[in-house]
Amino acid sequence: MRANLTVNPTEIFLPEIENAAAKSRFVFVCEHASNKIPAAWAGLGLTEAERTAHIAWDPGALGLARALSQRLDGVLIHAPVSRLVYDCNRAPDMAGAMPARSEVYDVPGNAAISAEDRLARTEAVYLPWCHALHGLIARRIALGLQPVIVTLHSFTPVYFGAPRAVEFGIIHDEDPHLARAIHAAALKTTRLRAELNAPYSAKDDVTHTLRVQATPYGLPNAMLEIRNDLIATPAAEIAMADQLAPVLNMGLVEIQKQAKAS
Amino acid sequence: MRANLTVNPTEIFLPEIENAAAKSRFVFVCEHASNKIPAAWAGLGLTEAERTAHIAWDPGALGLARALSQRLDGVLIHAPVSRLVYDCNRAPDMAGAMPARSEVYDVPGNAAISAEDRLARTEAVYLPWCHALHGLIARRIALGLQPVIVTLHSFTPVYFGAPRAVEFGIIHDEDPHLARAIHAAALKTTRLRAELNAPYSAKDDVTHTLRVQATPYGLPNAMLEIRNDLIATPAAEIAMADQLAPVLNMGLVEIQKQAKAS
Repeated sequence: MRANLTVNPTEIFLPEIENAAAKSRFVFVCEHASNKIPAAWAGLGLTEAERTAHIAWDPGALGLARALSQRLDGVLIHAPVSRLVYDCNRAPDMAGAMPARSEVYDVPGNAAISAEDRLARTEAVYLPWCHALHGLIARRIALGLQPVIVTLHSFTPVYFGAPRAVEFGIIHDEDPHLARAIHAAALKTTRLRAELNAPYSAKDDVTHTLRVQATPYGLPNAMLEIRNDLIATPAAEIAMADQLAPVLNMGLVEIQKQAKAS
Repeated sequence: MRANLTVNPTEIFLPEIENAAAKSRFVFVCEHASNKIPAAWAGLGLTEAERTAHIAWDPGALGLARALSQRLDGVLIHAPVSRLVYDCNRAPDMAGAMPARSEVYDVPGNAAISAEDRLARTEAVYLPWCHALHGLIARRIALGLQPVIVTLHSFTPVYFGAPRAVEFGIIHDEDPHLARAIHAAALKTTRLRAELNAPYSAKDDVTHTLRVQATPYGLPNAMLEIRNDLIATPAAEIAMADQLAPVLNMGLVEIQKQAKAS
Protein backbone atom coordinates (compact mmCIF):
# COMPACT_ATOMS: atom_id res chain seq x y z
CA MET A 1 0.00 0.00 0.00
CA ARG A 2 2.88 2.33 0.77
CA ALA A 3 4.18 2.57 -2.77
CA ASN A 4 0.76 3.37 -4.19
CA LEU A 5 0.43 6.58 -2.27
CA THR A 6 2.46 8.39 -4.90
CA VAL A 7 1.90 6.24 -8.01
CA ASN A 8 0.02 7.76 -10.93
CA PRO A 9 -2.31 5.69 -13.09
CA THR A 10 -1.23 4.91 -16.63
CA GLU A 11 -4.42 6.29 -18.13
CA ILE A 12 -6.50 9.19 -16.89
CA PHE A 13 -9.88 10.31 -18.19
CA LEU A 14 -10.07 14.08 -18.55
CA PRO A 15 -13.46 15.77 -18.43
CA GLU A 16 -14.59 17.74 -21.44
CA ILE A 17 -15.11 21.49 -21.31
CA GLU A 18 -17.39 23.22 -23.82
CA ASN A 19 -18.02 26.90 -24.44
CA ALA A 20 -14.85 27.66 -22.45
CA ALA A 21 -14.89 31.37 -23.29
CA ALA A 22 -18.50 31.84 -22.13
CA LYS A 23 -19.07 35.16 -20.41
CA SER A 24 -22.09 34.63 -18.15
CA ARG A 25 -21.84 33.60 -14.50
CA PHE A 26 -23.25 30.12 -15.15
CA VAL A 27 -20.96 27.09 -14.81
CA PHE A 28 -22.91 23.99 -15.88
CA VAL A 29 -21.70 20.70 -14.48
CA CYS A 30 -22.70 17.23 -15.66
CA GLU A 31 -21.16 14.47 -13.55
CA HIS A 32 -23.24 11.67 -15.10
CA ALA A 33 -23.02 12.68 -18.76
CA SER A 34 -21.56 9.45 -20.14
CA ASN A 35 -22.24 5.72 -19.89
CA LYS A 36 -18.83 4.84 -21.31
CA ILE A 37 -17.01 2.05 -19.48
CA PRO A 38 -13.36 2.07 -20.62
CA ALA A 39 -11.91 -1.26 -21.72
CA ALA A 40 -9.84 -1.67 -18.54
CA TRP A 41 -13.04 -2.31 -16.56
CA ALA A 42 -14.41 -4.94 -19.01
CA GLY A 43 -17.99 -3.66 -18.89
CA LEU A 44 -18.07 -4.26 -15.11
CA GLY A 45 -19.81 -7.57 -15.84
CA LEU A 46 -23.03 -5.82 -16.92
CA THR A 47 -25.32 -6.66 -19.84
CA GLU A 48 -25.65 -4.26 -22.74
CA ALA A 49 -29.11 -3.26 -21.47
CA GLU A 50 -27.75 -2.49 -18.00
CA ARG A 51 -24.91 -0.45 -19.45
CA THR A 52 -27.39 1.85 -21.21
CA ALA A 53 -29.84 2.08 -18.26
CA HIS A 54 -30.07 5.05 -15.86
CA ILE A 55 -27.78 3.31 -13.39
CA ALA A 56 -24.83 3.89 -15.74
CA TRP A 57 -25.52 7.57 -16.47
CA ASP A 58 -28.20 10.29 -16.52
CA PRO A 59 -29.84 9.94 -19.95
CA GLY A 60 -30.62 13.32 -21.50
CA ALA A 61 -28.65 15.35 -18.95
CA LEU A 62 -25.73 16.18 -21.27
CA GLY A 63 -27.97 17.23 -24.16
CA LEU A 64 -29.96 19.46 -21.85
CA ALA A 65 -26.83 20.90 -20.24
CA ARG A 66 -25.31 21.64 -23.65
CA ALA A 67 -28.45 23.42 -24.86
CA LEU A 68 -28.62 25.45 -21.63
CA SER A 69 -24.96 26.43 -21.88
CA GLN A 70 -25.62 27.72 -25.42
CA ARG A 71 -28.76 29.64 -24.45
CA LEU A 72 -27.28 31.20 -21.30
CA ASP A 73 -23.67 31.64 -22.51
CA GLY A 74 -22.41 29.40 -19.72
CA VAL A 75 -19.35 27.17 -19.68
CA LEU A 76 -20.07 23.42 -19.49
CA ILE A 77 -17.97 20.62 -18.01
CA HIS A 78 -18.91 16.94 -18.22
CA ALA A 79 -17.42 13.68 -17.05
CA PRO A 80 -16.26 11.22 -19.71
CA VAL A 81 -16.95 7.83 -18.07
CA SER A 82 -19.85 6.01 -16.45
CA ARG A 83 -20.66 6.70 -12.84
CA LEU A 84 -20.48 2.95 -12.27
CA VAL A 85 -16.70 3.15 -12.82
CA TYR A 86 -16.50 6.21 -10.54
CA ASP A 87 -19.36 8.52 -9.61
CA CYS A 88 -17.77 11.99 -9.69
CA ASN A 89 -20.53 13.28 -7.41
CA ARG A 90 -19.27 11.08 -4.55
CA ALA A 91 -16.15 11.10 -2.32
CA PRO A 92 -13.79 8.11 -2.63
CA ASP A 93 -14.94 6.61 0.68
CA MET A 94 -18.67 6.73 -0.10
CA ALA A 95 -20.31 3.44 -1.07
CA GLY A 96 -21.93 5.18 -4.04
CA ALA A 97 -18.59 6.17 -5.55
CA MET A 98 -18.14 2.67 -7.02
CA PRO A 99 -21.48 1.03 -6.20
CA ALA A 100 -21.77 -2.74 -5.84
CA ARG A 101 -25.52 -2.33 -6.28
CA SER A 102 -27.49 0.46 -7.96
CA GLU A 103 -31.27 0.51 -7.54
CA VAL A 104 -32.33 -3.06 -8.44
CA TYR A 105 -29.13 -3.94 -10.34
CA ASP A 106 -26.03 -5.71 -9.07
CA VAL A 107 -22.76 -4.46 -10.54
CA PRO A 108 -20.50 -7.54 -10.61
CA GLY A 109 -17.32 -5.57 -11.40
CA ASN A 110 -17.83 -3.53 -8.23
CA ALA A 111 -18.66 -6.42 -5.91
CA ALA A 112 -15.21 -6.63 -4.34
CA ILE A 113 -13.02 -3.58 -4.87
CA SER A 114 -9.61 -3.62 -3.20
CA ALA A 115 -8.03 -0.49 -1.74
CA GLU A 116 -5.66 -0.47 -4.71
CA ASP A 117 -8.55 -0.61 -7.21
CA ARG A 118 -10.31 2.16 -5.32
CA LEU A 119 -7.15 4.27 -5.51
CA ALA A 120 -6.67 3.53 -9.22
CA ARG A 121 -10.23 4.64 -10.08
CA THR A 122 -9.85 7.73 -7.90
CA GLU A 123 -6.69 8.67 -9.78
CA ALA A 124 -8.04 7.79 -13.22
CA VAL A 125 -11.44 9.48 -12.99
CA TYR A 126 -12.16 11.44 -9.79
CA LEU A 127 -8.98 13.51 -9.44
CA PRO A 128 -8.87 14.69 -13.09
CA TRP A 129 -12.54 15.60 -12.78
CA CYS A 130 -12.15 17.51 -9.50
CA HIS A 131 -9.07 19.39 -10.61
CA ALA A 132 -10.45 20.39 -14.02
CA LEU A 133 -13.68 21.66 -12.44
CA HIS A 134 -11.84 23.40 -9.60
CA GLY A 135 -9.41 25.01 -12.05
CA LEU A 136 -12.25 26.22 -14.23
CA ILE A 137 -14.04 27.76 -11.24
CA ALA A 138 -10.93 29.26 -9.58
CA ARG A 139 -9.82 30.88 -12.85
CA ARG A 140 -13.22 32.52 -13.19
CA ILE A 141 -13.11 33.67 -9.57
CA ALA A 142 -9.67 35.21 -10.20
CA LEU A 143 -11.05 37.07 -13.23
CA GLY A 144 -13.95 38.48 -11.19
CA LEU A 145 -16.61 36.53 -13.12
CA GLN A 146 -18.41 35.45 -9.89
CA PRO A 147 -19.31 31.92 -10.98
CA VAL A 148 -22.68 30.34 -10.21
CA ILE A 149 -22.58 26.54 -10.09
CA VAL A 150 -25.47 24.52 -11.55
CA THR A 151 -25.21 20.74 -11.73
CA LEU A 152 -27.52 18.90 -14.15
CA HIS A 153 -28.94 15.44 -13.58
CA SER A 154 -31.81 13.24 -14.74
CA PHE A 155 -33.76 10.67 -12.73
CA THR A 156 -35.72 7.60 -13.67
CA PRO A 157 -39.55 7.89 -13.71
CA VAL A 158 -39.88 4.54 -11.92
CA TYR A 159 -37.60 3.80 -8.96
CA PHE A 160 -37.73 0.53 -7.05
CA GLY A 161 -41.03 -0.08 -8.88
CA ALA A 162 -42.68 3.14 -7.70
CA PRO A 163 -43.58 5.93 -10.16
CA ARG A 164 -42.28 9.42 -9.42
CA ALA A 165 -44.66 12.33 -10.01
CA VAL A 166 -42.09 15.11 -9.66
CA GLU A 167 -40.76 16.34 -13.02
CA PHE A 168 -38.20 18.96 -12.05
CA GLY A 169 -36.31 18.72 -8.78
CA ILE A 170 -34.21 21.56 -7.43
CA ILE A 171 -31.84 20.49 -4.66
CA HIS A 172 -29.73 22.67 -2.41
CA ASP A 173 -27.01 22.09 0.11
CA GLU A 174 -25.99 24.65 2.76
CA ASP A 175 -26.96 27.75 0.75
CA PRO A 176 -30.60 27.49 -0.43
CA HIS A 177 -30.91 30.88 -2.16
CA LEU A 178 -30.40 29.92 -5.81
CA ALA A 179 -32.43 26.69 -5.50
CA ARG A 180 -35.36 28.54 -3.95
CA ALA A 181 -35.23 31.26 -6.61
CA ILE A 182 -35.18 28.69 -9.44
CA HIS A 183 -38.03 26.76 -7.83
CA ALA A 184 -40.15 29.90 -7.54
CA ALA A 185 -39.42 30.85 -11.15
CA ALA A 186 -40.36 27.36 -12.39
CA LEU A 187 -43.67 27.44 -10.52
CA LYS A 188 -44.41 30.90 -11.87
CA THR A 189 -43.50 30.43 -15.52
CA THR A 190 -43.81 26.71 -16.42
CA ARG A 191 -46.32 23.91 -16.04
CA LEU A 192 -43.64 21.54 -14.80
CA ARG A 193 -44.26 19.79 -11.51
CA ALA A 194 -41.31 21.42 -9.76
CA GLU A 195 -40.32 20.51 -6.21
CA LEU A 196 -37.60 21.61 -3.84
CA ASN A 197 -35.29 18.84 -2.59
CA ALA A 198 -36.99 16.09 -4.59
CA PRO A 199 -36.77 13.28 -5.57
CA TYR A 200 -34.02 13.35 -2.92
CA SER A 201 -32.06 15.89 -0.94
CA ALA A 202 -28.67 16.77 0.52
CA LYS A 203 -29.39 14.34 3.38
CA ASP A 204 -28.99 11.54 0.83
CA ASP A 205 -25.39 12.68 0.20
CA VAL A 206 -26.09 13.69 -3.41
CA THR A 207 -24.57 17.17 -3.16
CA HIS A 208 -20.87 16.28 -3.07
CA THR A 209 -19.96 18.50 -6.03
CA LEU A 210 -21.70 21.50 -4.46
CA ARG A 211 -19.95 20.88 -1.13
CA VAL A 212 -16.48 20.56 -2.66
CA GLN A 213 -16.63 23.12 -5.44
CA ALA A 214 -19.13 25.84 -4.50
CA THR A 215 -19.67 26.13 -0.73
CA PRO A 216 -16.01 26.73 0.26
CA TYR A 217 -15.88 29.71 -2.10
CA GLY A 218 -19.28 31.12 -1.14
CA LEU A 219 -20.58 30.61 -4.69
CA PRO A 220 -24.33 30.41 -5.38
CA ASN A 221 -25.20 26.87 -6.39
CA ALA A 222 -27.98 24.37 -7.09
CA MET A 223 -28.42 20.79 -8.29
CA LEU A 224 -31.12 20.31 -10.94
CA GLU A 225 -32.88 17.00 -11.57
CA ILE A 226 -35.11 16.40 -14.63
CA ARG A 227 -37.26 13.27 -14.96
CA ASN A 228 -35.61 11.48 -17.84
CA ASP A 229 -38.77 10.63 -19.81
CA LEU A 230 -39.11 14.38 -20.41
CA ILE A 231 -35.70 14.58 -22.11
CA ALA A 232 -35.69 11.23 -23.93
CA THR A 233 -34.90 12.60 -27.41
CA PRO A 234 -32.65 15.39 -28.75
CA ALA A 235 -35.78 17.38 -29.61
CA ALA A 236 -37.13 16.95 -26.08
CA GLU A 237 -33.79 18.07 -24.61
CA ILE A 238 -33.96 21.25 -26.70
CA ALA A 239 -37.58 21.89 -25.75
CA MET A 240 -36.73 21.48 -22.06
CA ALA A 241 -33.75 23.84 -22.41
CA ASP A 242 -36.07 26.39 -24.04
CA GLN A 243 -38.33 26.12 -20.99
CA LEU A 244 -35.60 26.12 -18.35
CA ALA A 245 -33.20 28.75 -19.70
CA PRO A 246 -35.50 31.65 -18.74
CA VAL A 247 -36.20 29.95 -15.40
CA LEU A 248 -32.50 29.78 -14.55
CA ASN A 249 -32.03 33.33 -15.69
CA MET A 250 -34.87 34.52 -13.44
CA GLY A 251 -33.27 32.62 -10.57
CA LEU A 252 -29.95 34.35 -11.15
CA VAL A 253 -31.55 37.79 -11.43
CA GLU A 254 -33.38 37.15 -8.16
CA ILE A 255 -30.29 36.18 -6.15
CA GLN A 256 -28.41 39.15 -7.60
CA LYS A 257 -31.23 41.40 -6.41
CA GLN A 258 -31.10 39.78 -2.96
CA ALA A 259 -27.30 40.20 -2.80
CA LYS A 260 -27.58 43.87 -3.71
CA ALA A 261 -30.26 44.45 -1.06
CA SER A 262 -28.36 42.75 1.75
CA MET B 1 -9.96 38.30 -21.03
CA ARG B 2 -11.63 35.58 -23.08
CA ALA B 3 -8.45 33.95 -24.28
CA ASN B 4 -7.01 33.77 -20.76
CA LEU B 5 -9.74 31.52 -19.48
CA THR B 6 -7.93 28.52 -20.90
CA VAL B 7 -4.32 29.69 -20.99
CA ASN B 8 -1.80 27.93 -18.76
CA PRO B 9 1.07 29.81 -17.18
CA THR B 10 4.55 29.17 -18.50
CA GLU B 11 5.90 28.35 -15.03
CA ILE B 12 4.10 26.71 -12.16
CA PHE B 13 5.32 26.27 -8.62
CA LEU B 14 4.61 22.81 -7.29
CA PRO B 15 4.34 22.28 -3.55
CA GLU B 16 6.74 19.90 -1.87
CA ILE B 17 5.58 16.69 -0.23
CA GLU B 18 7.69 15.02 2.46
CA ASN B 19 7.27 11.68 4.18
CA ALA B 20 4.83 10.66 1.40
CA ALA B 21 4.57 7.05 2.56
CA ALA B 22 3.69 8.03 6.14
CA LYS B 23 1.16 5.70 7.74
CA SER B 24 -0.56 7.77 10.44
CA ARG B 25 -3.76 9.73 9.89
CA PHE B 26 -1.98 13.11 10.17
CA VAL B 27 -1.65 15.29 7.08
CA PHE B 28 0.46 18.34 7.99
CA VAL B 29 -0.04 21.40 5.84
CA CYS B 30 2.17 24.48 5.73
CA GLU B 31 0.82 27.19 3.42
CA HIS B 32 3.31 29.85 4.54
CA ALA B 33 6.47 27.74 4.63
CA SER B 34 8.58 29.84 2.26
CA ASN B 35 9.48 33.49 1.77
CA LYS B 36 10.78 32.88 -1.76
CA ILE B 37 9.67 35.43 -4.34
CA PRO B 38 10.39 34.01 -7.81
CA ALA B 39 12.26 36.28 -10.22
CA ALA B 40 9.14 37.02 -12.31
CA TRP B 41 7.76 39.13 -9.44
CA ALA B 42 10.98 41.16 -8.95
CA GLY B 43 10.85 41.07 -5.15
CA LEU B 44 7.45 42.81 -5.23
CA GLY B 45 9.28 46.08 -4.57
CA LEU B 46 10.11 45.09 -0.99
CA THR B 47 13.34 45.62 0.93
CA GLU B 48 15.47 42.66 1.96
CA ALA B 49 14.28 43.13 5.58
CA GLU B 50 10.63 43.10 4.54
CA ARG B 51 11.14 39.98 2.44
CA THR B 52 12.38 38.08 5.51
CA ALA B 53 9.74 39.48 7.91
CA HIS B 54 6.64 37.60 9.04
CA ILE B 55 4.56 39.28 6.35
CA ALA B 56 6.33 37.18 3.70
CA TRP B 57 6.03 33.80 5.47
CA ASP B 58 5.55 32.09 8.84
CA PRO B 59 9.07 31.84 10.29
CA GLY B 60 9.64 28.52 12.05
CA ALA B 61 6.44 26.88 10.80
CA LEU B 62 8.11 24.59 8.26
CA GLY B 63 10.78 23.39 10.69
CA LEU B 64 8.14 22.65 13.30
CA ALA B 65 5.88 20.94 10.75
CA ARG B 66 8.75 18.79 9.52
CA ALA B 67 9.70 17.71 13.05
CA LEU B 68 6.05 16.90 13.84
CA SER B 69 5.66 14.88 10.65
CA GLN B 70 8.69 12.83 11.66
CA ARG B 71 7.54 12.30 15.25
CA LEU B 72 3.95 11.40 14.32
CA ASP B 73 4.62 9.59 11.01
CA GLY B 74 2.49 12.11 9.13
CA VAL B 75 2.80 13.26 5.55
CA LEU B 76 3.77 16.94 5.09
CA ILE B 77 2.98 19.31 2.24
CA HIS B 78 4.33 22.85 2.02
CA ALA B 79 4.02 25.75 -0.39
CA PRO B 80 7.16 26.83 -2.27
CA VAL B 81 6.63 30.60 -2.63
CA SER B 82 5.90 33.59 -0.40
CA ARG B 83 2.33 34.30 0.59
CA LEU B 84 2.87 37.82 -0.73
CA VAL B 85 2.96 36.38 -4.28
CA TYR B 86 -0.13 34.25 -3.53
CA ASP B 87 -1.38 33.26 -0.08
CA CYS B 88 -2.46 29.64 -0.55
CA ASN B 89 -4.74 29.96 2.49
CA ARG B 90 -6.94 32.47 0.61
CA ALA B 91 -9.38 32.22 -2.33
CA PRO B 92 -8.45 34.16 -5.50
CA ASP B 93 -11.05 36.86 -4.85
CA MET B 94 -9.97 37.60 -1.26
CA ALA B 95 -7.95 40.77 -0.70
CA GLY B 96 -5.47 38.73 1.36
CA ALA B 97 -4.63 36.41 -1.55
CA MET B 98 -2.26 39.02 -3.04
CA PRO B 99 -2.26 41.70 -0.33
CA ALA B 100 -1.47 45.31 -1.19
CA ARG B 101 -0.80 45.91 2.50
CA SER B 102 0.18 43.45 5.21
CA GLU B 103 0.14 44.63 8.84
CA VAL B 104 2.15 47.88 8.75
CA TYR B 105 3.89 47.18 5.43
CA ASP B 106 2.89 48.27 1.94
CA VAL B 107 3.60 45.73 -0.81
CA PRO B 108 4.35 47.85 -3.90
CA GLY B 109 4.22 44.91 -6.34
CA ASN B 110 0.65 44.18 -5.21
CA ALA B 111 -0.64 47.76 -5.28
CA ALA B 112 -2.42 47.43 -8.64
CA ILE B 113 -3.02 43.85 -9.79
CA SER B 114 -4.93 43.42 -13.06
CA ALA B 115 -7.38 40.56 -13.61
CA GLU B 116 -4.78 38.96 -15.88
CA ASP B 117 -2.09 39.16 -13.18
CA ARG B 118 -4.51 37.73 -10.63
CA LEU B 119 -5.25 34.85 -13.00
CA ALA B 120 -1.55 34.25 -13.70
CA ARG B 121 -0.70 34.00 -9.98
CA THR B 122 -3.71 31.76 -9.39
CA GLU B 123 -2.50 29.42 -12.12
CA ALA B 124 1.16 29.56 -11.11
CA VAL B 125 0.77 29.08 -7.35
CA TYR B 126 -2.77 28.49 -6.06
CA LEU B 127 -4.00 25.79 -8.45
CA PRO B 128 -0.89 23.58 -8.23
CA TRP B 129 -1.09 23.90 -4.44
CA CYS B 130 -4.80 23.07 -4.22
CA HIS B 131 -4.58 20.12 -6.57
CA ALA B 132 -1.50 18.58 -4.97
CA LEU B 133 -3.05 18.84 -1.52
CA HIS B 134 -6.44 17.60 -2.72
CA GLY B 135 -4.82 14.68 -4.56
CA LEU B 136 -2.81 13.74 -1.49
CA ILE B 137 -5.92 13.78 0.69
CA ALA B 138 -8.23 12.02 -1.80
CA ARG B 139 -5.70 9.24 -2.38
CA ARG B 140 -5.52 8.64 1.37
CA ILE B 141 -9.31 8.65 1.63
CA ALA B 142 -9.49 6.07 -1.18
CA LEU B 143 -7.01 3.87 0.69
CA GLY B 144 -9.07 4.05 3.89
CA LEU B 145 -6.42 6.00 5.82
CA GLN B 146 -9.00 8.48 7.22
CA PRO B 147 -6.86 11.61 7.00
CA VAL B 148 -6.81 14.25 9.73
CA ILE B 149 -5.82 17.71 8.47
CA VAL B 150 -3.58 19.91 10.60
CA THR B 151 -2.33 23.22 9.20
CA LEU B 152 0.72 24.82 10.83
CA HIS B 153 1.33 28.54 11.13
CA SER B 154 3.35 31.00 13.19
CA PHE B 155 2.39 34.50 14.29
CA THR B 156 4.37 37.58 15.22
CA PRO B 157 4.69 38.41 18.96
CA VAL B 158 3.99 42.10 18.24
CA TYR B 159 1.17 43.02 15.86
CA PHE B 160 0.34 46.62 14.99
CA GLY B 161 2.56 47.56 17.93
CA ALA B 162 0.69 45.48 20.52
CA PRO B 163 2.30 42.45 22.20
CA ARG B 164 0.44 39.14 22.04
CA ALA B 165 0.39 36.99 25.18
CA VAL B 166 -1.01 33.83 23.58
CA GLU B 167 1.69 31.31 22.68
CA PHE B 168 -0.23 28.48 21.04
CA GLY B 169 -3.48 29.18 19.18
CA ILE B 170 -5.80 26.41 18.04
CA ILE B 171 -8.34 27.54 15.47
CA HIS B 172 -11.33 25.65 14.14
CA ASP B 173 -13.82 26.15 11.38
CA GLU B 174 -17.18 24.34 11.21
CA ASP B 175 -16.08 21.20 13.06
CA PRO B 176 -14.53 22.13 16.45
CA HIS B 177 -13.82 18.60 17.76
CA LEU B 178 -10.14 18.23 16.97
CA ALA B 179 -9.30 21.83 17.92
CA ARG B 180 -11.01 21.46 21.30
CA ALA B 181 -9.28 18.16 21.97
CA ILE B 182 -5.86 19.59 21.13
CA HIS B 183 -6.55 22.67 23.26
CA ALA B 184 -7.53 20.51 26.24
CA ALA B 185 -4.44 18.33 25.81
CA ALA B 186 -2.16 21.39 25.64
CA LEU B 187 -3.64 22.84 28.84
CA LYS B 188 -3.27 19.50 30.58
CA THR B 189 0.25 18.55 29.55
CA THR B 190 2.20 21.73 28.73
CA ARG B 191 2.90 25.12 30.26
CA LEU B 192 2.16 26.88 26.98
CA ARG B 193 -0.40 29.66 27.07
CA ALA B 194 -2.83 27.87 24.75
CA GLU B 195 -6.04 29.50 23.54
CA LEU B 196 -8.89 28.43 21.30
CA ASN B 197 -9.49 30.65 18.26
CA ALA B 198 -6.64 33.02 19.06
CA PRO B 199 -4.89 35.21 17.96
CA TYR B 200 -7.72 35.16 15.38
CA SER B 201 -10.54 32.90 14.30
CA ALA B 202 -12.51 31.58 11.34
CA LYS B 203 -14.46 34.86 11.30
CA ASP B 204 -11.25 36.50 10.05
CA ASP B 205 -11.32 34.24 6.97
CA VAL B 206 -8.13 32.42 7.93
CA THR B 207 -9.52 28.90 7.54
CA HIS B 208 -9.71 28.67 3.75
CA THR B 209 -7.63 25.49 3.54
CA LEU B 210 -9.81 23.75 6.12
CA ARG B 211 -12.98 24.82 4.28
CA VAL B 212 -11.77 23.64 0.87
CA GLN B 213 -9.85 20.51 1.79
CA ALA B 214 -11.28 19.05 4.99
CA THR B 215 -14.91 20.10 5.62
CA PRO B 216 -16.38 18.80 2.31
CA TYR B 217 -14.99 15.34 3.10
CA GLY B 218 -15.99 15.34 6.76
CA LEU B 219 -12.34 15.09 7.84
CA PRO B 220 -11.27 16.14 11.35
CA ASN B 221 -9.20 19.31 11.09
CA ALA B 222 -7.53 22.15 12.96
CA MET B 223 -5.31 25.15 12.29
CA LEU B 224 -2.40 25.57 14.70
CA GLU B 225 -0.64 28.89 15.37
CA ILE B 226 2.65 29.13 17.30
CA ARG B 227 4.09 32.48 18.40
CA ASN B 228 7.18 32.76 16.25
CA ASP B 229 9.60 33.84 19.01
CA LEU B 230 9.14 30.33 20.47
CA ILE B 231 10.36 28.64 17.26
CA ALA B 232 13.06 31.11 16.22
CA THR B 233 15.90 28.59 15.88
CA PRO B 234 16.15 25.01 14.57
CA ALA B 235 16.71 23.84 18.17
CA ALA B 236 13.59 25.70 19.32
CA GLU B 237 11.53 24.17 16.49
CA ILE B 238 12.62 20.71 17.62
CA ALA B 239 11.89 21.46 21.27
CA MET B 240 8.40 22.71 20.35
CA ALA B 241 7.77 19.60 18.24
CA ASP B 242 8.80 17.46 21.21
CA GLN B 243 6.20 19.31 23.29
CA LEU B 244 3.41 19.32 20.71
CA ALA B 245 3.70 15.82 19.22
CA PRO B 246 2.17 14.15 22.30
CA VAL B 247 -0.46 16.92 22.47
CA LEU B 248 -1.58 16.27 18.88
CA ASN B 249 -1.56 12.55 19.52
CA MET B 250 -3.77 13.00 22.61
CA GLY B 251 -6.11 15.13 20.50
CA LEU B 252 -6.37 12.43 17.87
CA VAL B 253 -6.95 9.69 20.44
CA GLU B 254 -9.70 11.80 22.01
CA ILE B 255 -11.65 12.38 18.78
CA GLN B 256 -11.29 8.71 17.89
CA LYS B 257 -12.80 7.86 21.27
CA GLN B 258 -15.65 10.32 20.66
CA ALA B 259 -16.28 8.90 17.17
CA LYS B 260 -16.44 5.38 18.56
CA ALA B 261 -18.89 6.43 21.28
CA SER B 262 -21.25 8.28 18.92
